[in-house]
Amino acid sequence: MRILGIDPGYAIVGFGVVEYDGYKFVPVHFGAITTEAGTDFTLRLKTIYDDMNTVLNTFKPEAMAIEKLFFNTNQKTGIDVAQARGVTLLAATNMGIPIYEYTPLQVKQSVVGYGRAEKPQVMEMTRRILGLADVPKPDDTADALAIAICHGHSSGGIKYKEQFK
Amino acid sequence: MRILGIDPGYAIVGFGVVEYDGYKFVPVHFGAITTEAGTDFTLRLKTIYDDMNTVLNTFKPEAMAIEKLFFNTNQKTGIDVAQARGVTLLAATNMGIPIYEYTPLQVKQSVVGYGRAEKPQVMEMTRRILGLADVPKPDDTADALAIAICHGHSSGGIKYKEQFK
Repeated sequence: MRILGIDPGYAIVGFGVVEYDGYKFVPVHFGAITTEAGTDFTLRLKTIYDDMNTVLNTFKPEAMAIEKLFFNTNQKTGIDVAQARGVTLLAATNMGIPIYEYTPLQVKQSVVGYGRAEKPQVMEMTRRILGLADVPKPDDTADALAIAICHGHSSGGIKYKEQFK
Repeated sequence: MRILGIDPGYAIVGFGVVEYDGYKFVPVHFGAITTEAGTDFTLRLKTIYDDMNTVLNTFKPEAMAIEKLFFNTNQKTGIDVAQARGVTLLAATNMGIPIYEYTPLQVKQSVVGYGRAEKPQVMEMTRRILGLADVPKPDDTADALAIAICHGHSSGGIKYKEQFK
């Protein structure tokens, strides 16, 4: 199964494509969509949408796994991350790709086996599981790969469909 | 100038198209894009995007005026409204339509002349300004028309571009 993991954002959208056969993970491609500060926010949304379409068309994942959002104290940033996440979801939905979402706790439990794992532990385990020489950069890319692994490990996670019944 | 006012949401997206010549407003068309509860959230995003594209293609507005988001205590709803607002902005941006955003305070000041006006006052003034027999329903549609009027009255509002310089 080919899984696209996504760490949502508006300045950086981390992505990681992995193949999982039920036993091992093979990294296919990973990176980040970035948008420039100082650009119109609406143009940043368009860049994310266009680049996400390119990623989807190029790697043809069978599922998208994306981090669930929670708002912190910075309301302004939270709104913009959610707006950008909306266009990310739209790109996958337009192509009929099923989307699954996971909390940071679920990702840590799945990758490290411990829900309170620290970020460096998650990154190191992600590196090992994928057999990579180094932890991918930026962090958003490593996070996206961890989310993809989480989806592979799970039996499918909580699909939007199930949540909104 | 043809203005499309938008009251963002994910269950109901109110919209109102008005013509403004600098003196008077003429209503062109107004209504609401609705998505069904119980449907996949991602499919609701797609419906909003597709229907917004139809509105834009049909009425060809020169500007979109949309309400600024603020988060309230219902975080979950706030995130979903923001995600839906993201795809609404994307539809206009893909067509090169400039987007302006206004706070509820700005809308009240512009339509009623008083920032602390109550909702029924805003609706009644909107009805009068547009020469309508009744206040449009649902409320989201009336709100969208008020936002369009606000944009007409203003010298252009705060464009995303200016905000993110």
